[in-house]
Amino acid sequence: MINFTVGPVQMDEETRKLGMEQIPYFRTPEFSAIMKENEKLLCNFFDAPVDSRVVFMTGSGTASMEGGIMNFFTPKDKVLVVNGGSFGARFVELCRIHEIPFTEIKLEYGQPLTKEKLYEYKDSGYTGMILQLCETSTGVLYDMNMVGDFCKENGCFLFVDAVSGFLADKLSMKNMHINAAITGSQKALALPPSMSFTVMDKEAQNRCLTNTVNSMYFNYADYLKNGERGQTPFTPAVGTLLQLHEKLKRVEANGGINAMNKAAAERAEYFRSKIKDLPLKMFTGKDCTSNCVTALTPTNPGINAHRIFEIIKDEYGIWICPNGGDMAEKIFRVGHIGSITNEEIDKLVDVFKDLVKRNLL
Amino acid sequence: MINFTVGPVQMDEETRKLGMEQIPYFRTPEFSAIMKENEKLLCNFFDAPVDSRVVFMTGSGTASMEGGIMNFFTPKDKVLVVNGGSFGARFVELCRIHEIPFTEIKLEYGQPLTKEKLYEYKDSGYTGMILQLCETSTGVLYDMNMVGDFCKENGCFLFVDAVSGFLADKLSMKNMHINAAITGSQKALALPPSMSFTVMDKEAQNRCLTNTVNSMYFNYADYLKNGERGQTPFTPAVGTLLQLHEKLKRVEANGGINAMNKAAAERAEYFRSKIKDLPLKMFTGKDCTSNCVTALTPTNPGINAHRIFEIIKDEYGIWICPNGGDMAEKIFRVGHIGSITNEEIDKLVDVFKDLVKRNLL
Repeated sequence: MINFTVGPVQMDEETRKLGMEQIPYFRTPEFSAIMKENEKLLCNFFDAPVDSRVVFMTGSGTASMEGGIMNFFTPKDKVLVVNGGSFGARFVELCRIHEIPFTEIKLEYGQPLTKEKLYEYKDSGYTGMILQLCETSTGVLYDMNMVGDFCKENGCFLFVDAVSGFLADKLSMKNMHINAAITGSQKALALPPSMSFTVMDKEAQNRCLTNTVNSMYFNYADYLKNGERGQTPFTPAVGTLLQLHEKLKRVEANGGINAMNKAAAERAEYFRSKIKDLPLKMFTGKDCTSNCVTALTPTNPGINAHRIFEIIKDEYGIWICPNGGDMAEKIFRVGHIGSITNEEIDKLVDVFKDLVKRNLL
Repeated sequence: MINFTVGPVQMDEETRKLGMEQIPYFRTPEFSAIMKENEKLLCNFFDAPVDSRVVFMTGSGTASMEGGIMNFFTPKDKVLVVNGGSFGARFVELCRIHEIPFTEIKLEYGQPLTKEKLYEYKDSGYTGMILQLCETSTGVLYDMNMVGDFCKENGCFLFVDAVSGFLADKLSMKNMHINAAITGSQKALALPPSMSFTVMDKEAQNRCLTNTVNSMYFNYADYLKNGERGQTPFTPAVGTLLQLHEKLKRVEANGGINAMNKAAAERAEYFRSKIKDLPLKMFTGKDCTSNCVTALTPTNPGINAHRIFEIIKDEYGIWICPNGGDMAEKIFRVGHIGSITNEEIDKLVDVFKDLVKRNLL
């Protein structure tokens, strides 16, 4: 099978080889040294301010979304939440569960957050803002420079879910005034799913240390304390963390974050240029589309997007990424993260062409 | 390195080979079928009542300990918590965090829960009981038949942390009147750390469905609902779940749970018989010791248990398992779970003998 989903994605040979190794005992100085290096490299790649730290969470991206809501905000906050898809909607639900006062900026799915829309909320006492870098369900990339400037001007703590965007799209915590940002192991890092990572500036750390968190597993103060000696409070996915280390070192040796961004952009562009003449319409505008994924709407009448996913899986041995909920029948997605070659993209494009011939697309 | 810790432990060749494979997309009927089989086999191996279900949690064992406290109990309960080591203490802390009224049965570390002690609490309005099967920090195995009978007589909901005990020690949810029990991927299942599993009878499921849980990640009602179609609400450690499937099928084909229990008992006995004449004292009594791990106290004066761990790691290439906190300098542990051969045990025993010669033990 060739995998064009947005996670788990295709892993590199180096990562796969490590997957076969025995997993070492981890309460050792040897493992701590690796974890300290993981922390340093992640901070570098997020372009995080000096003295930033990382919480290594064993759990899906949602675990770190929820952990962030619990540790960074309290009922005394008043936050703006951008809901432009199912992951934005998840933040809305998390604020509801944890009783964080919020205003939802509901966007039409596939549409960007405009400056006009955002600045309706200026000077209105907001203390925080929460959104995705890339809304994975639609492929929209938000203008994080604009959002960061707004947050700086308005004194908002900015918490960004970059789970799928990190490495694929440009991200600078410093320049975008981001206080905390998340990524996950199975996205552009192309590791097995199991871990998510939150990079935090000093302000985010202070919030973790002073807020009361009614949870043991999500008590970030405890993670920060254990992290000082390169450890986690509970047994992490040790194998994934060793694969993370190898991957981060390899990224560093191969041009760093800029090279990764560039490769993702080129891969996305290669795919998009190849499907121009096919009966598929990009669901997002040209200026607000992530390098991570392309969401597509079949333009011929009567074509069911979820059925396309099934046919391509069952008859051609390729996974594209179906959508859920309201979007299931209208949209499918093609991911551009992980170890994907242009030859594999060509194969997928040939499949689309074959489906057109068969009157199935 | 040879690994005698209690997790992560040495994995089988079959498990390691799967670790090298690409990880499939999982929102498919194919993966759902595997998950349904995982659920059925885990229920079988826990000897769970008909209609039992499993929650597959991406997280350490502690995640499922906390999830259980949040989903099974409310401030209207009154629970007994056995604290005989650091994992018992963790349950105490979790009840405190989640405001579950509780009485702590504090045991001297290394000592069993006696019938006399337990029955002090009979007919006292307790609605629940929480304890380990094996207290991993000391190797004590609790008499779960006695505990189960007590819970049945007293109408207590019984929640058991069998994270390290499962597969190594005898466990029958039916016979021991256990409502819910946990295990973790990196213990006797010998998979990579990343997942923990809670097997629940009907009563436990009903509690999940009726209690209000202020969490998205720990909302078991959502896991049960998604589980009906063989899925999880959030991206799980898909690779580990495929390794789980292969392992459970292999256990089934090789004599099932009884054969696993027997092998663990024989391995523990083999090790214990070999160290009889060494200056090491078993920390637990003969009748209350788990097959999972042996906790040992050096008997010669001035010997620091943590130093022994360090020397064996650095000079002999073997991990034994250090203790934390108060026990760090007095106790170390030798695990008997995972893929360990008698030849490897012989090597460790030779190391102990060498340390005696060197006056280091």
